[in-house]
Amino acid sequence: MNEIRIGLFGFGVVGQGIYRVIRRATNAHASIERICVRNLAKPRAVEVDPSLLTDNPDSILDDPDINLVVEVVDDPEASYRFVTEAIRRGIPVVSGSKAMIARHLPELIELQRKHSTALLYDASSCGSIPVIRNLEEYYDNDLLLEVKGILNGSSNYILSRVFDHGEPYDQALTRAQQLGFAESDPSFDIEGFDSLFKLIIITVHALGVYISPERIFTYGISSISDSDIRYAREKSMKIKLVAQVVKVSADRFTMFVMPEFVTPSRYIYSVDDEYNGVVIRGECYDRQFMFGKGAGSLPTASSILSDVMARRHGYRYEYKKMDYVDRPDYTTDVPLKIYMRYPDSDFLQSIPFTRITEHYTSADYNYVIGEIPLSRLIEIRDRLSDKNVFIANFPQFFLDLDD
Amino acid sequence: MNEIRIGLFGFGVVGQGIYRVIRRATNAHASIERICVRNLAKPRAVEVDPSLLTDNPDSILDDPDINLVVEVVDDPEASYRFVTEAIRRGIPVVSGSKAMIARHLPELIELQRKHSTALLYDASSCGSIPVIRNLEEYYDNDLLLEVKGILNGSSNYILSRVFDHGEPYDQALTRAQQLGFAESDPSFDIEGFDSLFKLIIITVHALGVYISPERIFTYGISSISDSDIRYAREKSMKIKLVAQVVKVSADRFTMFVMPEFVTPSRYIYSVDDEYNGVVIRGECYDRQFMFGKGAGSLPTASSILSDVMARRHGYRYEYKKMDYVDRPDYTTDVPLKIYMRYPDSDFLQSIPFTRITEHYTSADYNYVIGEIPLSRLIEIRDRLSDKNVFIANFPQFFLDLDD
Repeated sequence: MNEIRIGLFGFGVVGQGIYRVIRRATNAHASIERICVRNLAKPRAVEVDPSLLTDNPDSILDDPDINLVVEVVDDPEASYRFVTEAIRRGIPVVSGSKAMIARHLPELIELQRKHSTALLYDASSCGSIPVIRNLEEYYDNDLLLEVKGILNGSSNYILSRVFDHGEPYDQALTRAQQLGFAESDPSFDIEGFDSLFKLIIITVHALGVYISPERIFTYGISSISDSDIRYAREKSMKIKLVAQVVKVSADRFTMFVMPEFVTPSRYIYSVDDEYNGVVIRGECYDRQFMFGKGAGSLPTASSILSDVMARRHGYRYEYKKMDYVDRPDYTTDVPLKIYMRYPDSDFLQSIPFTRITEHYTSADYNYVIGEIPLSRLIEIRDRLSDKNVFIANFPQFFLDLDD
Repeated sequence: MNEIRIGLFGFGVVGQGIYRVIRRATNAHASIERICVRNLAKPRAVEVDPSLLTDNPDSILDDPDINLVVEVVDDPEASYRFVTEAIRRGIPVVSGSKAMIARHLPELIELQRKHSTALLYDASSCGSIPVIRNLEEYYDNDLLLEVKGILNGSSNYILSRVFDHGEPYDQALTRAQQLGFAESDPSFDIEGFDSLFKLIIITVHALGVYISPERIFTYGISSISDSDIRYAREKSMKIKLVAQVVKVSADRFTMFVMPEFVTPSRYIYSVDDEYNGVVIRGECYDRQFMFGKGAGSLPTASSILSDVMARRHGYRYEYKKMDYVDRPDYTTDVPLKIYMRYPDSDFLQSIPFTRITEHYTSADYNYVIGEIPLSRLIEIRDRLSDKNVFIANFPQFFLDLDD
């Protein structure tokens, strides 16, 4: 139970939150010894002793007194550099950089093993909700069937404003940015990539399998239109941006990020505004629902604090599920039932639906509901990025192994 | 990472669930070596090799091959005997016996330390929801303000049937017993004691403080009447049996179990049937909501499995918060705002309300809404157990330290 002396990389919204939370947590026995920033001159909302600040990463990495690196840099390349360099020097790291972690996780796991040190990143997925830790430790068994949820607070905030308050989409996006929920590049949130990166990390801790981003179908909410919203409302549903990893048979699983129609009976129906909600489904325990603030300075900082505290007791992820026998294989050969708004019949004919069950056309709004394999959606994903096209998934049960 | 060889005490609903779950969890590397039951001749739903069964506790406790005791005996005295005896012999224990644990926790913590072994009991609180583990590991900091929720599946099932389906109370209770949600002694559930025991265990892991059962105000739902239900319905509220531990100032906390009026905007409003739902509130992260099946054979067994798996990695509770500086003190000197149905004006005059804000009388139904300190409710609790009396709490914020 040693004192934690932190070298902090990044002093933006989250970094400043960490600074405040660590000072408030008197039983944490943790202190921030140095803060590495890109621009020393930049004005900051939180008052901080200027002698703590540095723009030289080595003044953290070379300091033998620093025994934990906390990395919350909003630049995946810099993040990768700082994190791998710290691990190579045997310094444990707590990171919130989901994009970087999702892209490099196999290498980061290998590095941790090689240098016998730890990388914790619960804050990278769902802010204050302890999803990673619970998947790693508590759902550490074969019973898990599905992890599904709303993982991006910013896009969910926008959909809530649009659905519950009738706000125009652009106005809702601007407001999300003003409130600090949205990433600096909003396409990261609204095109589904933020959810995708979290889903990749979750899948490693849920099923012990790493799938790289380009292999996963990811579709966001940027082309949603009033017609789509009206369609959902008339059927008493909401549209939510949902990420899911789900076992489709005893030895196969699939995963994707896509808007989904959500009926009021679903737990995630009531996950509104910037909140995140995750449903963990398994044999025997059925559904567990975890809900909380997924974005924002202090919620993310409190999650970082939990990882910092865990380091006091030497906690590290063991990635036990990666050693399981019979890990399931990734497949995209699964049938989906989707709604698609489309511009004209030429476009419709270019989409390889297996079966169309509903078809609506009018002067300014056309849609079909039909079945299509996920693998085909991946093949045609470029075609679907047209702003006159929007797709959304109807949820289905792939598998329920309960007796 | 050794093989887990389990000696199981108890083979009722939960014990049989454990037997099935352990056999299904192929990556658990765990097996049940012997099962101690009270009556060998009793017929059981699950088919089991008769050579596994014994009615002699020592054939588990004396077996050097057995390296984990799992105890799910429906008899607190026997449970206490088996658990303490196992710990004294240095055998780690996973237990689901909340009544026993809540009564003996300080001694059990001391015993674990003395004999350097572990007692895990996540299944004892909220079945499949990992409340204890998360409070111990993830919310391991000073930010926690409140843990509040529906901890008893059986009483919640009854209230759901009564509220949402208009069923008579007695019929709902019978149905809960038939479905196996209710404990063998139903007063345990409906008088709030099951919730109380869980709350005591939660408080140790939330704030690092043990409070014994008799010091905590506990009021159940057995005297709820149609009038009370109608009152709540007219105000678009439900009545739920809620257990809570909450900080009321920087250095004091209170706790109690009481029916509470719940408005639709509250997370626990939608916790229906046999489900449990827990809200964890803290500085910085605001509210986290965890929801899942709190009762039943397989959900409880899956929680036991999580503890069994944790033992493969040598996990034990460290009770770190008990060593915190400035642990908060327990107080009952807090004002509550309650609803009370009462039989006559003599009775009303005997209740030491500080202030009455609403008063309704009629030929067959009288109620008041008023303020009363929790400490006074404890003093008069015998008087409140009259079947012509029912009280329910209006929730309030005691403290919000967020800035």
